[in-house]
Amino acid sequence: MAKINAHFQKLKAGYLFPEIGRRVRAFAQQHTDAAIIRLGIGDVTEPLAPALVEALKNASDEMGQRESFRGYGPEQGYDFLLDAIREHDYRARGIEIAGDEIFVSDGSKCDSGNIQEIFAADCTIAVSDPVYPVYVDSNVMAGRCGEADDEGRYRGIVYLPATEANGFMPLPPEGGAEIDLVYLCSPNNPTGMVATKDYLRAWVDWARAHQAVIIFDAAYEAFISDATLPRSIYEIDGAKTCAIEMRSFSKRAGFTGLRCAFTVIPKELMGIDASGEPVSINALWSRRHSTKFNGASYIIQRAAAAVYSDQGRAQTEAQVNFYRDNAAILRRGLHGVGFTCFGGEHAPYIWLQTPNGVSSWEFFDQLLERAHVVGTPGAGFGPAGEGYFRLSSFNSRENIEEAIARIQRSFS
Amino acid sequence: MAKINAHFQKLKAGYLFPEIGRRVRAFAQQHTDAAIIRLGIGDVTEPLAPALVEALKNASDEMGQRESFRGYGPEQGYDFLLDAIREHDYRARGIEIAGDEIFVSDGSKCDSGNIQEIFAADCTIAVSDPVYPVYVDSNVMAGRCGEADDEGRYRGIVYLPATEANGFMPLPPEGGAEIDLVYLCSPNNPTGMVATKDYLRAWVDWARAHQAVIIFDAAYEAFISDATLPRSIYEIDGAKTCAIEMRSFSKRAGFTGLRCAFTVIPKELMGIDASGEPVSINALWSRRHSTKFNGASYIIQRAAAAVYSDQGRAQTEAQVNFYRDNAAILRRGLHGVGFTCFGGEHAPYIWLQTPNGVSSWEFFDQLLERAHVVGTPGAGFGPAGEGYFRLSSFNSRENIEEAIARIQRSFS
Repeated sequence: MAKINAHFQKLKAGYLFPEIGRRVRAFAQQHTDAAIIRLGIGDVTEPLAPALVEALKNASDEMGQRESFRGYGPEQGYDFLLDAIREHDYRARGIEIAGDEIFVSDGSKCDSGNIQEIFAADCTIAVSDPVYPVYVDSNVMAGRCGEADDEGRYRGIVYLPATEANGFMPLPPEGGAEIDLVYLCSPNNPTGMVATKDYLRAWVDWARAHQAVIIFDAAYEAFISDATLPRSIYEIDGAKTCAIEMRSFSKRAGFTGLRCAFTVIPKELMGIDASGEPVSINALWSRRHSTKFNGASYIIQRAAAAVYSDQGRAQTEAQVNFYRDNAAILRRGLHGVGFTCFGGEHAPYIWLQTPNGVSSWEFFDQLLERAHVVGTPGAGFGPAGEGYFRLSSFNSRENIEEAIARIQRSFS
Repeated sequence: MAKINAHFQKLKAGYLFPEIGRRVRAFAQQHTDAAIIRLGIGDVTEPLAPALVEALKNASDEMGQRESFRGYGPEQGYDFLLDAIREHDYRARGIEIAGDEIFVSDGSKCDSGNIQEIFAADCTIAVSDPVYPVYVDSNVMAGRCGEADDEGRYRGIVYLPATEANGFMPLPPEGGAEIDLVYLCSPNNPTGMVATKDYLRAWVDWARAHQAVIIFDAAYEAFISDATLPRSIYEIDGAKTCAIEMRSFSKRAGFTGLRCAFTVIPKELMGIDASGEPVSINALWSRRHSTKFNGASYIIQRAAAAVYSDQGRAQTEAQVNFYRDNAAILRRGLHGVGFTCFGGEHAPYIWLQTPNGVSSWEFFDQLLERAHVVGTPGAGFGPAGEGYFRLSSFNSRENIEEAIARIQRSFS
């Protein structure tokens, strides 16, 4: 009798984006003439940079020639990409990361979903609330919590509310000794807020004191526009002994459809086995990665390496600046008609307070009906997201300007 | 305190291919003039077919244009690929599979490693011995067994010896009521043997009688050269209620470096929850797939779809025929000097008996020293592989002919 993993049955049925899709489709069917502008899902819209297209085509040609054909590659990634990451993402910021501390993958969603596998089933995890759902759902599937309560919080998971009072950046809780793993995301999805060095230092100090591990998701790192803000958690002394870092090419270089990311696990980082002995987290992940994954596509890795070329950097940085300018237009426009909003300076997301205390799903419907603009209700990211709403700056300039003009007309 | 997943510590340290690499490197250092021919790892060597290169380049150009750029795709795969799979892999064999019963991924290693997640932690799994190591290792990591014994068999896993007596195709064991999940692979890696309809029918009947699930790995299906042999387990009546099928573009079309595969889960297939109620396995996998995976790369899916075009089919079938002809040359040559060998007719692998009863690692060393040819010791795939040896037909014609000439000189 094939028994199923019963933990899957604890998952809340209605996932956020399918529900958004359902409401948008229903609206579109009733209003066939409405030109809907989608600022909901965080997906890039600019075409792939020319240097990357060229790299893809060159690599495709290589695959068609006997002398340059490549079959299975190294599971961790090709040296040409690992070396570029080490040089540009880390050495340039004064951080030394070894090639075998970097694991190239086909996306940060996979990495952030899979990383929990190497930890014990009875680990206690902590997440911010609101939160990117993958951190929670992957732990629910693995049985690291009980049923969800009426608000959607799973028993056994520690939720750290991100509120206006703490600048949407929750600090380590008092005590907090029961937490084994904490997921931090900066620049943050969904709030668009960013961690300072002091903030990360507080978490690193806490993690070292409790022998806990920080899973630091820096998927939006490229959007940081202030050079004094940390781009990597390893800019904090001691972080190599307590933190895993995840990065992605998705938002930085338009790879949401190409698929490439990487995870950094320093060799200093240790977990504890059942007898209290230290065990290398890098070695565990390496075993997981080489057992259940067969390397990212060669031609995609070539495109990722092209992100670090002179042309690739100039072109992809211009795209990030373009989206950031979109965010500034949204922020200014929203302020102009009295919205209170946060984030969007070092992130592609704006986190706005819903007006007049309406619920975030109510505001979703209002925005869709009045302005024909789609966003994401904050409550979809967790109960503390209630009363907030996420707008994404990923769109054409024309659509961003049209969206803000409609919002101003509808909500002034 | 970040406790690790202690099940990882049960994994046997020395993985097969690293040990082969170590021995080959040591030999090459001592014999710098030896032209080593590698018939060990099962990796393709022919360049990517021209129709596929063209598809990759066209899709890369699409990504560079605003109107045709694609970001996040559907997690299950694009319709253009799902439709081609349905038509050519299934409808052409009289099997109707719905689009939402197919899950496109970045490789069969991922799929066969991840599929166990949706089943209960206390499921009993069965595998053939010898076996592709991922089936076992992924279940060890998930805690579905105890420690390994001296022969490397994990306590709690049911091993089904594949021996000359059963034609290397073990039938369901007498009773076998304790087995919940069984992994079958045909054409088989490592033995190169192939399942008949009668063989699959025996397993389907057994699985239905016990409400067990068959995970059918058909990664080498393209190598089947006899039209009367089953290419899909769904050619067997009732299989949709008890079997998951996995296919790959790796060996069929040279995708080991590109990464694309798919898993089929019919909606009729049910597992049992803790209260004995039926639960859709398709729905569970869909939830897993969309939570921890973000779709295969768009341009790679375009290349996979090109495998089904007229040109793509002709070109990739010619490659498969080429490797199969290599296998025939190896088989004839080995027979010519008195080796007993199996497989290689409907598979790229030859499973030969080591001569004079030497161990499979001893034969590995003999073959390397005398003929400068690398193969894979059968014992590396499980204790019942002892006394056998796998040779792969993935190589140039020149190398295959040279390898067999050297083997004939060295072992006649």
